[in-house]
Amino acid sequence: MSLTIHKYGGTSVGTLDRIRHVAQRSLRAQQAGSQVVVVLSAMAGETNRLLSMAHDLTTLPNAREMDVLVSTGEQVSIALLAIAIHAAGGKASSFLANQIGMRTDNRHGRARITSVDDTLIRQSLERNEIVVVAGFQGVDAHGNITTLGRGGSDTTAVALAAALRADACEIHTDVDGIYTADPGICPDARRIDRISYEEMLELSSLGAKVLQVRSVEFAMNHNVPIHVRSAFNDEPGSWVTEEEASMESVRVRGVTSDTNTAKITLKRVPDQPGVVAQIFSPLAQAGVNVDVILQNVSEQGTTDVTFTVARSDLDQVQAIMDPLTKVLGTEGLTSDPHVAKVSLVGAGMRSHAGVAAQAFQVLGDAGINIQMINTSEIKISCVVTEDDSEQAVRLLHSAFGLGDSKG
Amino acid sequence: MSLTIHKYGGTSVGTLDRIRHVAQRSLRAQQAGSQVVVVLSAMAGETNRLLSMAHDLTTLPNAREMDVLVSTGEQVSIALLAIAIHAAGGKASSFLANQIGMRTDNRHGRARITSVDDTLIRQSLERNEIVVVAGFQGVDAHGNITTLGRGGSDTTAVALAAALRADACEIHTDVDGIYTADPGICPDARRIDRISYEEMLELSSLGAKVLQVRSVEFAMNHNVPIHVRSAFNDEPGSWVTEEEASMESVRVRGVTSDTNTAKITLKRVPDQPGVVAQIFSPLAQAGVNVDVILQNVSEQGTTDVTFTVARSDLDQVQAIMDPLTKVLGTEGLTSDPHVAKVSLVGAGMRSHAGVAAQAFQVLGDAGINIQMINTSEIKISCVVTEDDSEQAVRLLHSAFGLGDSKG
Repeated sequence: MSLTIHKYGGTSVGTLDRIRHVAQRSLRAQQAGSQVVVVLSAMAGETNRLLSMAHDLTTLPNAREMDVLVSTGEQVSIALLAIAIHAAGGKASSFLANQIGMRTDNRHGRARITSVDDTLIRQSLERNEIVVVAGFQGVDAHGNITTLGRGGSDTTAVALAAALRADACEIHTDVDGIYTADPGICPDARRIDRISYEEMLELSSLGAKVLQVRSVEFAMNHNVPIHVRSAFNDEPGSWVTEEEASMESVRVRGVTSDTNTAKITLKRVPDQPGVVAQIFSPLAQAGVNVDVILQNVSEQGTTDVTFTVARSDLDQVQAIMDPLTKVLGTEGLTSDPHVAKVSLVGAGMRSHAGVAAQAFQVLGDAGINIQMINTSEIKISCVVTEDDSEQAVRLLHSAFGLGDSKG
Repeated sequence: MSLTIHKYGGTSVGTLDRIRHVAQRSLRAQQAGSQVVVVLSAMAGETNRLLSMAHDLTTLPNAREMDVLVSTGEQVSIALLAIAIHAAGGKASSFLANQIGMRTDNRHGRARITSVDDTLIRQSLERNEIVVVAGFQGVDAHGNITTLGRGGSDTTAVALAAALRADACEIHTDVDGIYTADPGICPDARRIDRISYEEMLELSSLGAKVLQVRSVEFAMNHNVPIHVRSAFNDEPGSWVTEEEASMESVRVRGVTSDTNTAKITLKRVPDQPGVVAQIFSPLAQAGVNVDVILQNVSEQGTTDVTFTVARSDLDQVQAIMDPLTKVLGTEGLTSDPHVAKVSLVGAGMRSHAGVAAQAFQVLGDAGINIQMINTSEIKISCVVTEDDSEQAVRLLHSAFGLGDSKG
């Protein structure tokens, strides 16, 4: 018998009517002959309601207790769905992270899954029940509740798919798949039928919000096919799978932009061995993710070092860098919070030369200044001023024919 | 070092301001030199909000999943209190039932505690933390979440007091103690300083709402002193303890009435061996608690059997009894939902004769008809029509001098 994981996000379980709808969909999937495991997020708005109570009490709530608090959101969802399935004549059991040994490390608020115990889930499936699992949550080695960070329910679903060797992990969401670009920016964006893990990983890392990055990594490592589809109809969506021969002909799979980007420049840094480590080690220790790094050619023994970080980390970065500029004897620090990173992603870049050159040409012709460039085998990212980012996406989307031919 | 359990009900943690207040009280108790374990109910209104969502989905929600749902209420409270204690500069850890092995049987919605594992609580106290425990919830032998029924947090608190051999179990509530009668009925009712477990057990069973019956049983069995006091000031309240010599001089400790009472009469039941068992066995199997039973003298081989049940059980009792009346060949069934049970409770009745006679005289003089009587060593209950119940309480409260002399 086949076994499928079905993940529904907060919007898809945001009202009792939608929970009833998910109950019906889950029963239909079961009646079609599959074992069904459903993973849920909290009802839309619930996590924010809980967070705002904690933040009314204090600006910096205790991290362990925050996870105890916000994990109740998923617990409410799974209980209500199990009740709705019973009310519709089916059988269901809900499970929390501690009940299915959803083990993580102990980093509250951004924990990583280390193992899953499938015993109770298998027993429940053998009793012909629909298994309903709380997404987003885990337990550490001491039994403390942890959470996986925003979008963590995607990772819960993929981890369960891997542990249960499921046939597929279906991500039911409020969009009907993965698009060649944000349709809000490119009205002619098209749904992608199939995309490779590597490409999806880049798209997710570079600003596409449809799947949490870690869930894609997990799926790639365990070869779990992901199907991103609409929670509100039965149309097929987008499959994320291993790279296939047919995918190679496409040079560019999609264009994305990330406006949660800020640029920082340290001016006239002494060009000596070890200096760069002195700059970036304290950021790494603080958990700040440094993205594009650019170092100018040395001039009179000094160099400018420019890098980007998430805009939401900018205050923290400045607090760490300010004392450091004195220690290093640099001329100081400038920052620009109003930049964006526009990226082209496509596994076909490996075998097709000239994509980068064509991209730079398109942006240059439109008078868009590229401040920084970062490339990998399958992606090209350009940092531009935020005001230019939407136009840049549209130009690139059009130049590589994404709106015309199916991705 | 002393160790005290502090239980706060839903009203006492009903707003963020009140949670801050409980954090301050808990820290003061700790600073006064005691180890502190706090047990919380859900914020006022939260349990009803959760129940109404489930009942919007179906009239009879699955029992296991209801417990998963409603137990989130206490989880939110304990996380917020722990956050508030940290915000005030203290240290705290919250614990759910599964984390402290709060084992129960598997009767969802009305489970009974069987054991508690104090390991993690001890460790937390040794780290100088305030321990914050979710009331009302447990886990069965298979790790399923259970709940203890309305008022169950009292029992959680007493069970922890017993397991940790605490010096006292303080029940902080929205009244400032246990009264000789409901002050809403008797304006001159007085707070009782000390009351025995047996007396409190009778008062709780007979309608006093301040402590869950099971919590008093548990305290009596494990000799846990309970202190019922106001959550909003530091005045002493009422102590529930073992019977002491000084208590004996009081004939009547308090008067209470229970209007959640209905009376049922089976007319002309054949007066044969085994018939009474045939009547009451199916009720016991359905979990219906039958209270006062009265059987008239046999007349021509038949007898009338009258008994009382909780008014909320009346529909269920009629559904069970109706087919039975035919099987037994009785003349049928009459019921009166508008009765009340008025009770006098006092350990002193053991050594003082004439309490019952005086009570009947007082009610008789006022023209109040006593429909049924039930007595034990330390209580006298009279079933009267509901309209007479408040007057009966006032008359008895006054006749036994409860408003004048301290109880």
